[in-house]
Amino acid sequence: MISVAVLGASGRMGATTVHAVDSADDLTLVAALDAGDEVAMAARAGAQVVVDFTVPSATEANVHAAIEAGLHAVVGTTGWTADALGRVDEHLKERPELGVLIAPNFALGAVLAMKLSAAAAPYFESVEIVELHHPDKVDAPSGTARHTAAGIAAARAAAGVASSPDATSQDPDGARGAVLDGVHVHAVRLRGLVAHEEILMGNPGEQFTIRTDSFDRVSFMPGVLLGIRKVAAHPGLTVGLDGYMTL
Amino acid sequence: MISVAVLGASGRMGATTVHAVDSADDLTLVAALDAGDEVAMAARAGAQVVVDFTVPSATEANVHAAIEAGLHAVVGTTGWTADALGRVDEHLKERPELGVLIAPNFALGAVLAMKLSAAAAPYFESVEIVELHHPDKVDAPSGTARHTAAGIAAARAAAGVASSPDATSQDPDGARGAVLDGVHVHAVRLRGLVAHEEILMGNPGEQFTIRTDSFDRVSFMPGVLLGIRKVAAHPGLTVGLDGYMTL
Amino acid sequence: MISVAVLGASGRMGATTVHAVDSADDLTLVAALDAGDEVAMAARAGAQVVVDFTVPSATEANVHAAIEAGLHAVVGTTGWTADALGRVDEHLKERPELGVLIAPNFALGAVLAMKLSAAAAPYFESVEIVELHHPDKVDAPSGTARHTAAGIAAARAAAGVASSPDATSQDPDGARGAVLDGVHVHAVRLRGLVAHEEILMGNPGEQFTIRTDSFDRVSFMPGVLLGIRKVAAHPGLTVGLDGYMTL
Amino acid sequence: MISVAVLGASGRMGATTVHAVDSADDLTLVAALDAGDEVAMAARAGAQVVVDFTVPSATEANVHAAIEAGLHAVVGTTGWTADALGRVDEHLKERPELGVLIAPNFALGAVLAMKLSAAAAPYFESVEIVELHHPDKVDAPSGTARHTAAGIAAARAAAGVASSPDATSQDPDGARGAVLDGVHVHAVRLRGLVAHEEILMGNPGEQFTIRTDSFDRVSFMPGVLLGIRKVAAHPGLTVGLDGYMTL
Repeated sequence: MISVAVLGASGRMGATTVHAVDSADDLTLVAALDAGDEVAMAARAGAQVVVDFTVPSATEANVHAAIEAGLHAVVGTTGWTADALGRVDEHLKERPELGVLIAPNFALGAVLAMKLSAAAAPYFESVEIVELHHPDKVDAPSGTARHTAAGIAAARAAAGVASSPDATSQDPDGARGAVLDGVHVHAVRLRGLVAHEEILMGNPGEQFTIRTDSFDRVSFMPGVLLGIRKVAAHPGLTVGLDGYMTL
Repeated sequence: MISVAVLGASGRMGATTVHAVDSADDLTLVAALDAGDEVAMAARAGAQVVVDFTVPSATEANVHAAIEAGLHAVVGTTGWTADALGRVDEHLKERPELGVLIAPNFALGAVLAMKLSAAAAPYFESVEIVELHHPDKVDAPSGTARHTAAGIAAARAAAGVASSPDATSQDPDGARGAVLDGVHVHAVRLRGLVAHEEILMGNPGEQFTIRTDSFDRVSFMPGVLLGIRKVAAHPGLTVGLDGYMTL
Repeated sequence: MISVAVLGASGRMGATTVHAVDSADDLTLVAALDAGDEVAMAARAGAQVVVDFTVPSATEANVHAAIEAGLHAVVGTTGWTADALGRVDEHLKERPELGVLIAPNFALGAVLAMKLSAAAAPYFESVEIVELHHPDKVDAPSGTARHTAAGIAAARAAAGVASSPDATSQDPDGARGAVLDGVHVHAVRLRGLVAHEEILMGNPGEQFTIRTDSFDRVSFMPGVLLGIRKVAAHPGLTVGLDGYMTL
Repeated sequence: MISVAVLGASGRMGATTVHAVDSADDLTLVAALDAGDEVAMAARAGAQVVVDFTVPSATEANVHAAIEAGLHAVVGTTGWTADALGRVDEHLKERPELGVLIAPNFALGAVLAMKLSAAAAPYFESVEIVELHHPDKVDAPSGTARHTAAGIAAARAAAGVASSPDATSQDPDGARGAVLDGVHVHAVRLRGLVAHEEILMGNPGEQFTIRTDSFDRVSFMPGVLLGIRKVAAHPGLTVGLDGYMTL
């Protein structure tokens, strides 16, 4: 049984985490804290792991307080700079037995899609990405699609694979979409969708497709629980949930 | 049993038609003609229907010769102008019992996708099109996708439906693709694909998708056979296979 | 502006309808009624249309009360027998200007999928259905899939189309799924899904697919609003939302 | 430049291999051999690698002859028993510098689908398989789907993941399909399809899908060429193309 404290427990992700920890047989929620509460309260409540879904201005101090208090930390708050990550890394040298996971994305499907498409892409002549989201999204393409394209491009470059063939010479309206790191990326916006990504790969006579669909913020919970369960077994700083996944 | 003559029998589409007619229990191939042969030979061979897969420079004369000879005609050759169609219409007034079908696309799936997506699109808040082809195609998007977008836009306008919502304000690389008649169209090019189109529609909490995949020129044959079987029952000039389809 | 009263307003579908009517520019909510309230209250509040999402034991009396009060009715409550429908039909003869819509399914996507797949299926050699739902569903296949199979089978029979080819001679574990009215139906159960259906059709070298995804009960609202807006223009009894849809 | 000899060069797979080797810039075809020819001819022609697409009764002798002649071997012929594999393994001890690859499936997409779905499946609560083939196939489900289910089941067991949830209590017609190693497998048969497999995984609020489509025997060629290029770097016996793929 792992004892868990949640920081930012009244926010949307924090509240969802509280509910998920409560529902898991192998986890106990010992503290649900919010702005104004001190991380030390988590330690006094007997927590082994703190989960941080707070705000960018608070998260770094929370992580250092957790290390001081001898707690593992699982962090989903965004806004971490390389400098801030470096300071955590440094602090952890004093407590080499502690683990800290800082992950920008806890959706297992999205993390797997990035990882597995980078693994598969060097084996195919062509690769393109279609990402699909609700129509209230202001930016295109999604950050996930940008990361996926970058990962695919790096994997293909490392394997010495040429860029995808494309004979298009007439495209007056821009139907071929964006080209990011040499990979074509298309952004669909449709009422009723949430967050989806499809990576399409092709060889002569053959297609290979990886697709991830996220319908709801509860989709992040299996990833958060995975982090809580594995953080003690991964001492030091880990950035990205894929560091805990064996593929 | 319907007796059929094929013009342009040694071309790729013609040869495939010869084979398809030969394989159909209710059709008999009575003549396989080519450049230099006369349409009158089809009549002498006992044909009731001539199928024309020749070249733009020959097809109009072939159709008039078929009408002269009292034969129904099914035409897949491209390049017909409005004037040329008008001359066939005029000529058919002398032989009101004859049917002529001139169809730019015999792929049932593509014709159905256009027809059914135009029927469904007014019931959804959002609609976008993704077309996917082999990477040797030089133009984007495909003509089929352009026609589909136009049909959808016309159906939505007739029903008084607003344009699809889209909050995109940052799209530096053009990931949102082309906008044709107010419909976003995305063109994917992938080795191993042939000709594919997906029409995506969405309402709150709901998606509706129509997809057509064409892998091979044999996919045109069910449409060609449909034309041969139905042309006698549709006197006069019909443009487009959908004129023969009851939906 | 159409004035609307909702019966069963505190139930899940009723509450969602109240919200949807409130949000529509061309509709006014004049009464939100519940068990114990009388339909006559809807009339006194100035309603033109009553929407019934109550319970099987109450819905028939509600519809007759609506007719008495001179109101159009849109009914999503299930449990209607042929006899009960007959009594509504009879009653409406006294008020031929009134419309009553009784619809088992207000999901536009599901209704369209049934309608359009029945229209398309006679043009293809093969057709199969895959329905996908959450794993808490107790019956397989879904009622929607059963209706879809029946509609497809009837359309193919009417067009004289043979049954789908199938050379399977070894299937020790039942992988080929159910056969309903001659159509193979497969039921997938997967955590995270809600209600989905895919109709797959095929000819040589060609595929045609219709897919509907419903993620949420809000997906029924466009259909409910369509019913409210059109019921006055369809006097008499209509069973099924497709009776109001021009395709 | 790698010098290649093809055994079984006039068979369908052999002929396709001859063409693929001819078209590859880094490979030279030095011999195209058939029944009656001796493997020693490949050595005399200067081959470094022999590719065997012959028949079950000939393939084992061919491999031993290749080892005798000091050639690497890439084998796509089926029918290998454990005993026969053991004899190759034994023989290779005399020539530890030689590599032999015996692969039942050279379709990269199918191999990747098996490998990656086994890697991903432990992270999801639910997993099911849908395989789709042409309607002339006599067995259901496909061997590939059986292997995929076995690999997924083994990976989930190793990770201590429970079986997929399923509340189905009424399924009078068998719509839930086959259950292989605890994984539901559905087999679709549709005119126009060739060989396709979709692995569906789900968590609350999230779906993850891997799909592979094979349209043509040319789809095996990237896998065959991969084998030819890598066999020299993998001394000893390797069974299965995935042994050469870094994922």
